[in-house]
Amino acid sequence: MTTSSSVAESVLAPVDPELAEFDRYVETAREHIYTRVQPMPLESLDSWYTDPDTGWIRHRSGKFFSIEGLRFTVSDGPVPEWCQPIINQPEIGILGVLVKEFDGVVHCLLQLKAEPGNRGGLQLSPTVQATRSNYTGAHGGGAVPLLEYFRDAPAHRVLADVRQSEQGASFLRKRNRNMIVATADDVPDRDGFRWLTVPQVLRLLRRDDLVNMDTRTVLSLLPFAAAALRRRNGGRAEAWTRTLLRSCDRAASSVHPDRELQAWVTDVRTRTDVSATPVSMASLHGWQRADGTIRHETRRFFDVIGVGVESAGREVARWTQPMLTAGEDGVLGWLVRRIDGVLHALVRMRVEPGLVDVAEIAPTVQCIPGNYAHLPPAAHPPFLDEVLNARPERVLFDTMLSDEGGRFYGISNRHLIVETDAVHNHPDYRWVSVGQLVDLLRHSHYLNVQARSLLVCLYGLLLDPADG
Amino acid sequence: MTTSSSVAESVLAPVDPELAEFDRYVETAREHIYTRVQPMPLESLDSWYTDPDTGWIRHRSGKFFSIEGLRFTVSDGPVPEWCQPIINQPEIGILGVLVKEFDGVVHCLLQLKAEPGNRGGLQLSPTVQATRSNYTGAHGGGAVPLLEYFRDAPAHRVLADVRQSEQGASFLRKRNRNMIVATADDVPDRDGFRWLTVPQVLRLLRRDDLVNMDTRTVLSLLPFAAAALRRRNGGRAEAWTRTLLRSCDRAASSVHPDRELQAWVTDVRTRTDVSATPVSMASLHGWQRADGTIRHETRRFFDVIGVGVESAGREVARWTQPMLTAGEDGVLGWLVRRIDGVLHALVRMRVEPGLVDVAEIAPTVQCIPGNYAHLPPAAHPPFLDEVLNARPERVLFDTMLSDEGGRFYGISNRHLIVETDAVHNHPDYRWVSVGQLVDLLRHSHYLNVQARSLLVCLYGLLLDPADG
Repeated sequence: MTTSSSVAESVLAPVDPELAEFDRYVETAREHIYTRVQPMPLESLDSWYTDPDTGWIRHRSGKFFSIEGLRFTVSDGPVPEWCQPIINQPEIGILGVLVKEFDGVVHCLLQLKAEPGNRGGLQLSPTVQATRSNYTGAHGGGAVPLLEYFRDAPAHRVLADVRQSEQGASFLRKRNRNMIVATADDVPDRDGFRWLTVPQVLRLLRRDDLVNMDTRTVLSLLPFAAAALRRRNGGRAEAWTRTLLRSCDRAASSVHPDRELQAWVTDVRTRTDVSATPVSMASLHGWQRADGTIRHETRRFFDVIGVGVESAGREVARWTQPMLTAGEDGVLGWLVRRIDGVLHALVRMRVEPGLVDVAEIAPTVQCIPGNYAHLPPAAHPPFLDEVLNARPERVLFDTMLSDEGGRFYGISNRHLIVETDAVHNHPDYRWVSVGQLVDLLRHSHYLNVQARSLLVCLYGLLLDPADG
Repeated sequence: MTTSSSVAESVLAPVDPELAEFDRYVETAREHIYTRVQPMPLESLDSWYTDPDTGWIRHRSGKFFSIEGLRFTVSDGPVPEWCQPIINQPEIGILGVLVKEFDGVVHCLLQLKAEPGNRGGLQLSPTVQATRSNYTGAHGGGAVPLLEYFRDAPAHRVLADVRQSEQGASFLRKRNRNMIVATADDVPDRDGFRWLTVPQVLRLLRRDDLVNMDTRTVLSLLPFAAAALRRRNGGRAEAWTRTLLRSCDRAASSVHPDRELQAWVTDVRTRTDVSATPVSMASLHGWQRADGTIRHETRRFFDVIGVGVESAGREVARWTQPMLTAGEDGVLGWLVRRIDGVLHALVRMRVEPGLVDVAEIAPTVQCIPGNYAHLPPAAHPPFLDEVLNARPERVLFDTMLSDEGGRFYGISNRHLIVETDAVHNHPDYRWVSVGQLVDLLRHSHYLNVQARSLLVCLYGLLLDPADG
């Protein structure tokens, strides 16, 4: 188990020379892989129109996604009803990472992409990041490179393949297939694609806004890939495989046995009545369309804006689209505690309007702090202050990491993992061991995307710094 | 592992004296727990009406359930589109079995009930079998006895609690909470309620139409209850607990590793586009309302009929309701095979219109044979002939077991478990170990109700006959 001092050591350790080479590559790539993004009024978007009856924003092809209005009611929450715009994209896309051994060391093939919403320009995407519209050619661009490795993978090469949710506050029932596939092929070099070792990727997670959301959600499945690789290799394992498997062992003791966790999930999902009703934009209480955007009258939550994009290094050179943006960064915070030597994280079941099954397991803290600034302290999210004001030596991880840059414009969340000794008996929260969280990830729709994003940051801490 | 000869021995063994006492109790109970059911036209039902616009049948209170019309399309199946009536009851009810140790032996509290659709009159129901309408008093009757054990159970007494689907061909998105809860209370005797040991219940499963569908789906969770009981008792376990846990061990080897099964589930659920559109009864192609019923012009599938019920031993004495009935019994068949000493069952992912998530794992055979009699042999369900024509010594289980008698009138399925040595490489089927099936049952919506019903029959075979 990593201690805060061993984390500190690893930060003080000399930078991995492999990353110096990667850094030089990125600087060169910036010259020919980039986007130039120009905000523009929603009314001026090519190929997109506002439906006169509903006020919803749709693509003229009927494909891609639409921005719709939603009235959401929840029987058992602090806010029983609200209205909001939401992205509807009823397709299950593929987020896939290809892995391959070079000299007995597993590497992941990641792609430097310049999505229009990326903070910092280039971010590391999965090998394949494809909506169905993408890979059936609806965008008029070329085929998605390397997609065949994921669409037609033989069973024994698929190390992980499970549908997981996207942001339930912004997407209506959106899921993606998260896949890790192994290959032994000679995959030809392609501009922007780089093979990186797992410790390298986990080290890069400590850089602000570099490893993108899609990569993080896929790599939250790394323990399954590790287990599968060890089996494929007849038990032989790299150091990172052993460390990750040992740390995520579900047989380790836990505060709550699995059946108690399952009963908790069942209880919340059964007890909470939710309804999501499509409504016109004009009837969204508190929201207004003005100045070419859709925004809340308080300027909280998010805005829907239009952008024009000019892109190099991508399959399509110019397009326009709506995006979501926010005026302030969010906070995703995890309190973690060692209980009988086993690392546990404090989680809750969080109801969100776009989730397919009522609620999913969420981090200790998931919010935009400014949305609560006007409320009395008692109405602030639980544990927010503890996470933000932790003593530096208890902060195990603190990095800004972006939401996916194809739909979210410059939205980034501070990812904070804070160790605590406090017991925190809160009726809506549970201490769950890392092994239990990993085991639930084998199945769809238990951990929300924010929890998965923090989980992969935790893997980075669990690895012996010597591996990096 | 049980062999067919050991099963034969157990059948030849003297009948358990405890069951003789139970049998006498049942015969006495028949005199005061019964229903008298009179078929009647749908038009004559009290409190139910046919909506003039849609032709749907609803209760005047707006509660209970309705019979609606559905057009169902599926992108990847042998029949790409069809219409049918379906039961809509958008509530998550509770099916709960209370367990308690007497002299160190776990007993389950089951209830002899006379549901109107029961073949054979009395069947063994769970301790509690309550829709939300039931337990919120919408039916005007008394409170559901013993419900408090399930609604307010402390976490450490809940041995299993997971939502599972009902029949996806007849119910629209219907789920129930399946619960096993332990108590140490002195539960007062009540008319019709009996404490039975697990081996007794599993033995009673070999009687036609006695253990009802709801009891079977709850008791499919027995391995989790067994594991939880062993932990509660500091590792001490009854013989049935040890046998069940050993036989269902998920660590046993399996043909497909877990990740391959998960990838298969993900692939079917992602690849198959389904849509379920509500439509009026009048536009249901092939269906007609005539003679006070709704039925298919070929008389296949099922009929919607009306019944008047007079009941003794229940909370309400007289009522009318619509029910589903079928002219012919169904077949639920499982081919099982021992692979490297581990019992595997041949399953498929079956798309059904009422499932919440596209498809669930179903038995090898699940059909009403007569529905295929008019089709050429190539269009018959795979493996039906093999299951029906197996040599007697390969038939491990062969019993008629009823669908739930509150909605289904006299519908029963022949439950057949047949051992085979054939490999059967069929692209739509997989051999899955019993341990893997049990492990998936920890989570919602993997095994359909037919598979769960056969699984509990399999537990009966796995138990050492000496336990019974």
